[in-house]
Amino acid sequence: MHAVIMAGGKGTRFWPAGREKKPKQLLKMAGERTLLQQAVDRILPLVPRENILVVTGEAHGRDTLSQLPELPAGNIIMEPMGRNTAPCIGLASMAIGIKDPEAVMIVLPADHVVEDDEAFRDTLRLAALAAEDEPCLVTIGIPPRSPETGFGYIERGEPASAKSRNDVFRVLSFREKPDLETARSFLEKGTFFWNSGIFVWKVSSIMKSIRKYLPDLYEELLSLECSLGTPEEAGAIRAAYERILPISIDYGVMEKARDVLVVKGDFGWNDLGSWDALADLLPKDDAGNILRGPVLAVDTQNSLVLSGGKVIALVGVDDLAVVETEDAILVLKRGRSQDVKKVVDRLERENKKEYL
Amino acid sequence: MHAVIMAGGKGTRFWPAGREKKPKQLLKMAGERTLLQQAVDRILPLVPRENILVVTGEAHGRDTLSQLPELPAGNIIMEPMGRNTAPCIGLASMAIGIKDPEAVMIVLPADHVVEDDEAFRDTLRLAALAAEDEPCLVTIGIPPRSPETGFGYIERGEPASAKSRNDVFRVLSFREKPDLETARSFLEKGTFFWNSGIFVWKVSSIMKSIRKYLPDLYEELLSLECSLGTPEEAGAIRAAYERILPISIDYGVMEKARDVLVVKGDFGWNDLGSWDALADLLPKDDAGNILRGPVLAVDTQNSLVLSGGKVIALVGVDDLAVVETEDAILVLKRGRSQDVKKVVDRLERENKKEYL
Repeated sequence: MHAVIMAGGKGTRFWPAGREKKPKQLLKMAGERTLLQQAVDRILPLVPRENILVVTGEAHGRDTLSQLPELPAGNIIMEPMGRNTAPCIGLASMAIGIKDPEAVMIVLPADHVVEDDEAFRDTLRLAALAAEDEPCLVTIGIPPRSPETGFGYIERGEPASAKSRNDVFRVLSFREKPDLETARSFLEKGTFFWNSGIFVWKVSSIMKSIRKYLPDLYEELLSLECSLGTPEEAGAIRAAYERILPISIDYGVMEKARDVLVVKGDFGWNDLGSWDALADLLPKDDAGNILRGPVLAVDTQNSLVLSGGKVIALVGVDDLAVVETEDAILVLKRGRSQDVKKVVDRLERENKKEYL
Repeated sequence: MHAVIMAGGKGTRFWPAGREKKPKQLLKMAGERTLLQQAVDRILPLVPRENILVVTGEAHGRDTLSQLPELPAGNIIMEPMGRNTAPCIGLASMAIGIKDPEAVMIVLPADHVVEDDEAFRDTLRLAALAAEDEPCLVTIGIPPRSPETGFGYIERGEPASAKSRNDVFRVLSFREKPDLETARSFLEKGTFFWNSGIFVWKVSSIMKSIRKYLPDLYEELLSLECSLGTPEEAGAIRAAYERILPISIDYGVMEKARDVLVVKGDFGWNDLGSWDALADLLPKDDAGNILRGPVLAVDTQNSLVLSGGKVIALVGVDDLAVVETEDAILVLKRGRSQDVKKVVDRLERENKKEYL
């Protein structure tokens, strides 16, 4: 078994903690280890370390290497620029396919949180069995806990086989981020999962699908075959990426492919997509507060306060997120964390690179 | 004419900007000069510099001296401990009385804001004339702009004389901080002023009143007569202050005295008693915000944001005060600034002296 950890996140949604140079996956968002380290730790009982690839941006190569000393340095693949998930996955598939074209590979985002690692691995084992059985693409679907409008959804059909009746299903359709009403109807129907962005398949299956649905990308990937693992690798990838168009694996492949299965993943998944998502995840005190570092809360409720060193005193406030870092402070109304992007946009527009 | 500037404030209401070591009057709260410097600047056209005394705590002596290089160093009187306003005023009166017992002296808090300095001095000139005319105590009353419950009030009676019909009145009574209903009734009646804590009188008048209403204090002050202005001054003051009981000039003298006049002071007075008061005072942008330093406000209204150096980004918040200093950050709901004291109390209780 092989695994590919996609660690190309930009981290703007967690400004000011997440920065261009330190995106979310490189931070200790929840626990003593960074999200990237947790992603590797979580998969290590399932996949030997030499079979774990990490794909990241060149800007984060050094941090990624130093956070993962247990992996062979050659297992860190660097993208010269972000081209969304399809090129990233294609590149990793090529790298694995050179060694073993019939290998089963797991594709994982580096920046998610999982509560039950054992259940997580059980789900992946089940998905790997399904992916070995037939030349299909397997995705992990999360039973939705609320009508989220920030996620894509997967509509399931019949169980894939008699023996996996309640855990593996044929996919009827992929749905992009719905509006609230649609999301509610999905929950009512009970046949929809959140799209976790976790995939399992044989290298041969995904390469066949890329050839079929993204032939231009396939050609570029083929051109890399001889240089991967050689000193020419970086230059060859750069040349190909200059030409490759950005596209997601969902839009480019999954939504078009026929033989797609979804495995139910009930392991306390959280995509940690915003300060609100982090606040939802962390344990709270009696006043509903999450306080880290020297924080004094007077008559303050439902707030997430992360000190970066200074003492932070709050008086008479509710539903705030307050985050201090070395050079910045964010004061955010809970429920508005999608608009943190507006801060980053403004910093970009005003060319304040030091804060990005 | 002489002036006494009372600069003994503790500054806890402006935490984290105001600190034990840097109370409000030593800060640039509104403008390029500190409140103390502004207080001296404001009185200089009226009182020669050698006649301006500043009374401050020993802990603030050095800062006070360095902020006021234009004053003779001997004009800074240091109290070894705070004993409220009556001992402070008594001590200054003694110091002036040694030179000229019939001098007219103006008593001013160091930490107020005045919009119209010229009108301020005109009011004091009028008060000085009244104080010279008869052996009375003169106080400055501010026409109330709202039913403040944080101020004392002065009830006026008849005009003191025909020629000063609309500006100088006999005082009927002093009223301590009222509840809201009472404050509203004061405003409706139209015969009440806010008590500004600014006083004008002859040295002989106030000393006579202290002898009558605070005889113990008077005895202690008399004992200092020979040591003021000598090397024994500090030791003598310390010994006396150990015995002197704290009491305010309002409670100890003004409320009991008979011949008290009030002069109407219409000069844009603000006691700057809290972050809310400061926010009320400062000019606002179209969204009602007051932003100082590198601040990014996204969908944010009616907020006061003072950066101490870090970039502060706000998203979707209303009615906040956010204040960053070198080692602390305050996030305060507007209207709750009286509760900043609770933060200071907790820091004291937890013995976090470095933040006090």
